[in-house]
Order: sequence, then structure tokens, then C-alpha cells
Amino acid sequence: MMDKAQIGVIGMAVMGKNLALNAESRGHTVAIYNRTGAKTEQVMKDHSEKNLVPSYSIKEFADSLEKPRRIIIMVKAGKPTDAVIAELLPFLDKGDVLIDGGNTYFEDTVRRNAELDNSGINFIGMGVSGGEIGALEGPSMMPGGQKEAYDLVAPILEEMSAKAKDGAPCVTYIGPNGAGHYVKMVHNGIEYGDMELISESYHLLRDLLGLSVDEVASIFSDWNEGELDSYLIEITADILTRKDDLGTGKPIVDVILDRAGNKGTGKWSSQSALELGVPQSVISESVYARYISAMKEERVEASKVLPKPEVKLGELDKKELVEKIREALYFSKIMSYAQGFEQLRVASEHYEWDLNFGDMAKIWRAGCIIRARFLQNITDAFDEKADLNNILLDGYFKDIVKKYQESVRDIVGIAVKAGIPVPGFSAAITYYDQYRSEVLPANLIQAQRDYFGAHTYERTDKPGSFHYTWYTEQ
Amino acid sequence: MMDKAQIGVIGMAVMGKNLALNAESRGHTVAIYNRTGAKTEQVMKDHSEKNLVPSYSIKEFADSLEKPRRIIIMVKAGKPTDAVIAELLPFLDKGDVLIDGGNTYFEDTVRRNAELDNSGINFIGMGVSGGEIGALEGPSMMPGGQKEAYDLVAPILEEMSAKAKDGAPCVTYIGPNGAGHYVKMVHNGIEYGDMELISESYHLLRDLLGLSVDEVASIFSDWNEGELDSYLIEITADILTRKDDLGTGKPIVDVILDRAGNKGTGKWSSQSALELGVPQSVISESVYARYISAMKEERVEASKVLPKPEVKLGELDKKELVEKIREALYFSKIMSYAQGFEQLRVASEHYEWDLNFGDMAKIWRAGCIIRARFLQNITDAFDEKADLNNILLDGYFKDIVKKYQESVRDIVGIAVKAGIPVPGFSAAITYYDQYRSEVLPANLIQAQRDYFGAHTYERTDKPGSFHYTWYTEQ
Repeated sequence: MMDKAQIGVIGMAVMGKNLALNAESRGHTVAIYNRTGAKTEQVMKDHSEKNLVPSYSIKEFADSLEKPRRIIIMVKAGKPTDAVIAELLPFLDKGDVLIDGGNTYFEDTVRRNAELDNSGINFIGMGVSGGEIGALEGPSMMPGGQKEAYDLVAPILEEMSAKAKDGAPCVTYIGPNGAGHYVKMVHNGIEYGDMELISESYHLLRDLLGLSVDEVASIFSDWNEGELDSYLIEITADILTRKDDLGTGKPIVDVILDRAGNKGTGKWSSQSALELGVPQSVISESVYARYISAMKEERVEASKVLPKPEVKLGELDKKELVEKIREALYFSKIMSYAQGFEQLRVASEHYEWDLNFGDMAKIWRAGCIIRARFLQNITDAFDEKADLNNILLDGYFKDIVKKYQESVRDIVGIAVKAGIPVPGFSAAITYYDQYRSEVLPANLIQAQRDYFGAHTYERTDKPGSFHYTWYTEQ
Repeated sequence: MMDKAQIGVIGMAVMGKNLALNAESRGHTVAIYNRTGAKTEQVMKDHSEKNLVPSYSIKEFADSLEKPRRIIIMVKAGKPTDAVIAELLPFLDKGDVLIDGGNTYFEDTVRRNAELDNSGINFIGMGVSGGEIGALEGPSMMPGGQKEAYDLVAPILEEMSAKAKDGAPCVTYIGPNGAGHYVKMVHNGIEYGDMELISESYHLLRDLLGLSVDEVASIFSDWNEGELDSYLIEITADILTRKDDLGTGKPIVDVILDRAGNKGTGKWSSQSALELGVPQSVISESVYARYISAMKEERVEASKVLPKPEVKLGELDKKELVEKIREALYFSKIMSYAQGFEQLRVASEHYEWDLNFGDMAKIWRAGCIIRARFLQNITDAFDEKADLNNILLDGYFKDIVKKYQESVRDIVGIAVKAGIPVPGFSAAITYYDQYRSEVLPANLIQAQRDYFGAHTYERTDKPGSFHYTWYTEQ
């Protein structure tokens, strides 16, 4: 009789296939299944030497697994996930562990976790970041669900995960029910922010400073040697060196249409921040920037009607400005993460997840799209103070923002004067100035609310709610 | 036998009571009902001379109305609305018209409209703006539901509504099912934007220019004579003249705590914009500004740690800056409305509501919180071109933004340098620069997405989706 598999993967699209190959490469026998058998056959053909156990029925798949079963589901998030679970359920036993590795909306995970818990089945919603290569070689993984179920899969997941420079695996138990998918959602929101801030820097380097693509590539390459060192800066530098492969001879960026798509996780992240009362302006502006980019035809029409500013900028010191843009980028990135971690803190309380924020930073240090040297600084900040309210209050970050704030102010000032939109930079410096303001003009807003809606106000000199007699009431 | 009432109101809190008195003042007999009879008794006691028919059971209430019944429900949005409908349903007849005048989430209205339609009951979801006084003297009303049902209530609603300067009633049929409550939601989002932009102007006048409360009051009063003429500017000027009524002798704004509340409609509006793919940055920043204002203790702590900018501003020409702030405020208000109307346009297509945008501007000219002279300009713009894509493309608005853009750029530049947060102004000029940009740096974002996620890209030189071979695929 054939040995049973230690883990199984359902869904043989590229992410599922690569996760299966990843697990196999760690010395495991891996059961695989796909709704249409042809895909499974193809995987077996391409990897005949690997320790994979193909199944062509869900029952056969369930039978091929050690108990308690460990099953990773990698199918399109939404109805397909529910369909797979329904199909699988009759063949599962109490104590089995299902892991949904898709980009699932966290509230769906909360629901599925509760439903399956009633049948004694453990359900883990796991964010997986790192793209195709990451899935194969080692992704960052964010699993949430029953802690005792996580313990059953932890050894395999730790083997499969990326490793940080200090050797720590980029996976850890995140929290109950939807916590893992929530954290992945915020991770993706942060990714939107990082990409937007990079694109604003690129825009300024090319359009404000008039640098060539090659010059900009070399700047990003330099930046990647310093505190901005990160996957997204690295691939930006790489992208900017590439030539069109369809024969125009131009840099590939110059033939790519300026219309950015999105898969919805940045949107979810902003919607959740709005729901929880957390200011998350950098990420939201990044989402909106993609939306405006998508309105290409409308923008082309508007550009013929709405004038640019006529202001001439004085002589620019390019070298100095490049450094200021770098500082503005790092400053803004810090604000974006400050907001993201603030959102995690509020969500953790709201959903009673008891998140360990230092752990989030730790498992993002490698494997995932936002991996960066800077996540070690966040890790250190939470190591020093586990209940840190906001990373801006940490010593390292406090010093950086103090040092770099003038550069952001200068760059935003110049960009606004020149008509180059910098929504991320603007939102970042605005958030900084709001967050560090003992007094904001919300007293006037509250007065207006009390005036037209009798919403009452609080006072600076005593506790309680008050209503001012603005006019004779009816 | 007593005459039957032409219209009934359920819910005798201040808004319901005032709507009932409003209808009565137009010569109608009005049936009233409240869950707890004591409130109804109180209304009858306070208004014994009025033509009101009290009921103390829901059956009695239903019996007291002419058929088809016209009933306005003014109870707390959410479960109380469902409870009232369930209680009322057994006593209704086919063709009766229920109007929910609460601040209901539009998707609830879509659901209720469909459910009641199955029983042959007409259900209108109606946004009501104008506060207590508006409800009594003439609000702006935004009813959505069955058109034939609206026609049955239109004469009374038109009598009850505010009237614009040209005599037009501030109520009109908005569209099917949830259209009325959706439009009210966007109205409220716009209201958040207006209030935020006013508070930023106030902040600059006081903290940048160092003007006294009295001086600022007089500036808002002046502004109310010009193109900014509006209810919110008017009450701001009034608020700033008021002294604390609890004995400190200070201006009331100076004793009101800078922590702004919210009732959720601004949040809904932003969440919907995110859902529909519409950039709505000015309103979202206004919502976030309230959230940050509410983090008072955290801000006080942060203010001790995070430094202000050290930059000294040169000599300021106060008179010139006051005018620039006024222009920045008007410019930013225009951007906020441009985004709001863009959201209505996309929602109208998405939900198949066939909204008439000119009508929205028309019924907002009087009665509601955002009433303003400027809504006549929007009315005119849609009168001239009913399918106007964006109000920025209209002749009047195009000329204004062309003229005022330098002022916004100057004010944002100075504010960012001085460390005074202007999230609304910043978002406004950013949106302008994005919207009028033929080319944005989203090509780089799309290149990144294709690099790490194989999301494909479009080209500037030919149609179709392409994937670049960034690295050797596994």
C-alpha cells in the first residue's frame, strides 16, 4: 500500500501547484487534486520525479491523506471556496485541518470558521504573499483560526515559509477565525501604499527633474542599498532597465499604458479602516490614484480643457532634490505603515484577536511583496515595547521623521506648485501634522453639528455633553 | 364620523413631530402615532389647536388614514424601521405608500422596497435634510421608490418642501428603490467635505494669520456675501460671534473640545465610492480628519514627542492671504462636488437608477444643510448639458478653477511648510492635477503588478493585454 500524504493541496493553478511543490521539496509526500483532472495530469507529467500523489476524485484525495488531514485550498476566493468545502466535507473527520490560502475576504473566513467548527473541522484562513516564486521557494504566510489546529500544521508551514535574515520562519499563528486574512488584507493595503509612493517618486524624478529612465533606474538601484532596501524598490530598478520586447526599442515602462488595475484588497482595507474609525489616508489615496488612472479617456479629454499651473520653478539643484525625494519617500512609507499598524491595533481590539504586532512585522521581513529592511526596524520597535501605540512614537522612527519632515514639506510644496500630483506624499505629511497636533479645528465642526443637528459638544474645561442654545428652539 | 387624515407620521421624536406639524400647516389633517403613547399625548397637549389625529394603536392609526394611505416613518434607522413595518403591514392595503424618512442605509431600502413590493405595498426611501427647523419649515427631500407611488405623495411633499429662489420645490422623484437614500448619503458626504474645508480655512485664519475670533467671524460674514454664500458659512460666522453660556466669558468655540463625532453617513459615502471605483478623496479625508480629531489623548501624547517644523515663514501679507484662503476654499469645494457628482453618475449606471443630476443640484438649493448659492451654478451647468461628465468641464467652473488654482497651490504650500494640516485642500488640488493629467505614473504600478503577479499590462501603441517576461518562469 502506498504511503499516505502528509499534506494535500486542492487547486492546481500556479499558486496551488507551487505550494504543493514547495511542500514536496521539504521532504513530504503531497496529495494533489484539481476540479478538472487534466490540470492534475499536467502537473504529474511536468513533475513525474516528485513525491506527489494525484487524485481524480475528492474521495480518493481525502483517502490519500494522513489523519488528521492537512489540506490547503488554493482556489479562486468566494463561491469556488464554498463549493470545494461542501464537496470535501462528507469525506472529512473531526479534527481535520482545512487551510484556505486564497485572497479571501476576512468576514467570509469568520463565517466559514464558525460553520465548520460546528462539524468539528478546523478551518484556517491563511494569507499567502510572495507571488508565484514565493509560493514555490518560500512565501510569507498569515494563518488565522484554531490555535490547536495551527499547531498541527505549524511544522510543515514553517519549513515551507521564507526565512528572515536571522533564520526565523515567515509564518506564525496570527489569531482566531478571520485574523489571518485580515492581516493579509492590510498587508495588501500597505503594498498599494508602497507602490503609489514609489510611482510618485518616479514621476517627480522624470517629470520634475527631467531625468532619463536609465538615470532613474540607477537612482532606485542606489536607494535599494540604503534604508529603502526592499523588494518593490529592487524590482522598480530592474523594471526601469528593461526594454520593450515587442520591437519598439523603447524602455518597457514607456509603452505600458498608465492605467492601473486592482484586485480589491486595497479597497477592502480602506473600507475596513473607515468602518473601524481608523485614519488610513495614505492607502486610501493609493486606491483612489489607481481609480483615477483607470479613467484614462476622461483624463485625456480633461487635459485639453483644464489648464496646468503657469508657475515657473526656479533653478533646481537636482542632486539635492533626488535626496529630498528619497527622504520624502521613506517618511511617507513610515506614515503608511503607522496607519496600517494602527488599523491592526484597532481591529485586534474590535474583533478580539489579540494580535501580536511585532510578529506581523517579523513575518513580513522576507517572502512577501512588502519585504524590506525597514520591517526589521518595526520588529525592533515592538520588541522594545510590545504595546506601542503607534510606530511614530518609537525612538528610531521618531528620529527619522524629525530629520526628514522638511524634505517632505519641500517636495510636496514643489510638486503642488508644479502640478505633479503626489497624493501619497501629501496624505503622509498631513497625517503627521494631524497626529502630532494637540489641537485641531474639530471644535468648529462640533459647533456646527450642535448648531444644525443638536448633536451636543464636549468642553475643554469639564467633562460631559453640552448643547448650546444657538437659537430659540421650536 | 371624523374626517380621515390625508397623511400620517409614525415616530414623534423631533423630526417626526416637525414633519407632522409641517404637513398640518399646509392645510392637511395629519394622523400621528408613536410606540409609546406618552409622546403622542405630549404632542397633542403642546399643539391642541392643530389638525392632528392621534392614535394609540397601530390599527387605529391605519384606520384613521384616507386610502391609499400615505405614511411617513420617522424612527431610528435600522431594526426599529423593520419593526414598524412588520407591525403596520397587517393593516395596510395594496397600493398604500410607506415613506421611510430616516437616515437609512440605501441597501436596506433596496431590500425593503423589494420585500414590500411583493405584498403590493409601495415603499419610498426618502432622504430628509434640514435638521429640526428644516423639517418644520421646509426641508429638502430626496424620495426614491416606485414612480407611481411618488406621484400619489408628490403634491403634499411639494407643499412641505423648502422652495428655491425661483420658487421650485426642493423635492423631486429621484429614482427607483434605494436611489433617494443613496443621494442623501452622498449629500451628507458632501456636507462632511464642506465642514472640513471650512474648518481648515478657520484653522489657517487663526493659527497661520493669528487673527482673533471676532476677525474670523467677520471674514466668514464677508465671504457669505459672495460666491461662497451658503448655510454652513452663515452659521460659521454666527457661531464665531457667540460667547460661552457657562460663564467663562470666552468665545464658545474656544471651550468646545476639538473632537468631532459622526453618525456614519460620511463613512458610508466613502465606502460606496471605494466599492464603485470612484475617487472621492476630499470626502474621505474629511471623514479621516474627524477620526483623527477623536484620538485626542493620543494626539496630546504625540504632540510631546513629535516635533513641529522649524521653518520660519517670511512676512505674510494678511489681506492677500485671506483672499487666497477664500479662493482655496471655493476651489476645494468645487473639487469635492465634482467627486460627489461623479459618484452619483457611476452609482446611477451601476444600480440602473437613471438619476437626473441637474435635479439633485436643484433640490439642494434650499432647505438642506449644504444649501448654497453655488448649487445654482451646478443647476445651470446640468441645464446646459444634462450628460455633463464632470462639473469641472462646465464653462463657469472651468474658469473659476483656472483662476483660483494658484491660490490653492500657494495655500497648500504655506500650510504644509507651517505644519498646519489641510487634508481637504491637499486632496482637492491633488485631484485636480490627477484629473487633468493626460499621463499619470500608473504605468510603473502596472509594470510592478505584471512583474510580481503576472497581472498583465496594456500598451500605449496597440490594444490587448500583454505579459512581459521579467524572469524565467518556473
